[in-house]
Amino acid sequence: MPTPSLLDGLIEALRCMPGIGRKSAQRIAYQLLERNRDGARKLAGALMQAMDQIGYCGRCRTFSETSICHLCNSQSRDRSLLCVVESPADVCAVEETGYKGLYFVLMGHLSPLDGIGPEDLGLEQLETLLAQGETKEVILATNPTVEGEATAHFISDIVRRHALQVTRIAHGVPMGGELEYIDSNTLSRAISGRRAF
Amino acid sequence: MPTPSLLDGLIEALRCMPGIGRKSAQRIAYQLLERNRDGARKLAGALMQAMDQIGYCGRCRTFSETSICHLCNSQSRDRSLLCVVESPADVCAVEETGYKGLYFVLMGHLSPLDGIGPEDLGLEQLETLLAQGETKEVILATNPTVEGEATAHFISDIVRRHALQVTRIAHGVPMGGELEYIDSNTLSRAISGRRAF
Repeated sequence: MPTPSLLDGLIEALRCMPGIGRKSAQRIAYQLLERNRDGARKLAGALMQAMDQIGYCGRCRTFSETSICHLCNSQSRDRSLLCVVESPADVCAVEETGYKGLYFVLMGHLSPLDGIGPEDLGLEQLETLLAQGETKEVILATNPTVEGEATAHFISDIVRRHALQVTRIAHGVPMGGELEYIDSNTLSRAISGRRAF
Repeated sequence: MPTPSLLDGLIEALRCMPGIGRKSAQRIAYQLLERNRDGARKLAGALMQAMDQIGYCGRCRTFSETSICHLCNSQSRDRSLLCVVESPADVCAVEETGYKGLYFVLMGHLSPLDGIGPEDLGLEQLETLLAQGETKEVILATNPTVEGEATAHFISDIVRRHALQVTRIAHGVPMGGELEYIDSNTLSRAISGRRAF
């Protein structure tokens, strides 16, 4: 007789989640079976529903249950600002700052080695959006990595072609950080980006 | 219009797993939606099936799809040995050592403060098992915590009443450990438990 195959199957299936290895998957499976079968059933339902019903916003490409997401649909947003980010998680992060403009989500960054080119980032869709004339300023909020910087440069060229203002979020010393422990690259950006006080 | 409720629902549902906080849940939800919808659907199915079909073995109380688990049913195990552990995960851990006896899973430990008494650990079922006469030796492999030790003492009294041999797994310096970094409690157990060399 084989080992309990459903349990092994569950442990294996749990590993599809990022950051969950074999040991964590085992711990989660046992814990759910022992303590929280209802929670696990709810999770199964939520997963199934989300995977089937969540698509992408036709305007900003973020996750949305509707063809246009609630942010793009909202009348209370400043439609002259467009913040370009790499992922829907970045939208959440920027939302927490109180930013009131709209977004455009690339769902990745330029990465020729992985075969990710401009067409994969929906840049044609971005051009269509810019051509509509609502946008006055594009804020580039891609990650400060090599790929994120390259993507920002690429997009800034597109935006300039539309004669719109293009800005990049500031790089420098994070709030609460200590200069002593900041890497020299960041510190050099902080100094070159200094502002009148 | 509210924020995408399915996504929020998924993030909330993911938090039923131990060790998954809000940030991890968000990361997992985004990752699954972006990269692995099929994996997530499979996970939902595995969760549902496991929660509905995995019950407990009627003999050793571990997780099992059948009324008696494959270990208790196996003819190749040494039925004179019974290893008492706290959880099904401990069964896995002991299995990896090559142990060939049977198990009894308490599904917890004595903890009067949490209202967990002998009846919650299936100790009546253990007595029935011991009364069947197959068992010659009971190995107490509860965790070396205060509750685990108390549970071991409690069970050892039961086993002695059946005039069977009762043993406790050794406590001491873990293999590959360095004496310098071992806590004094463990080291004192290692010294008092020293064996002829």
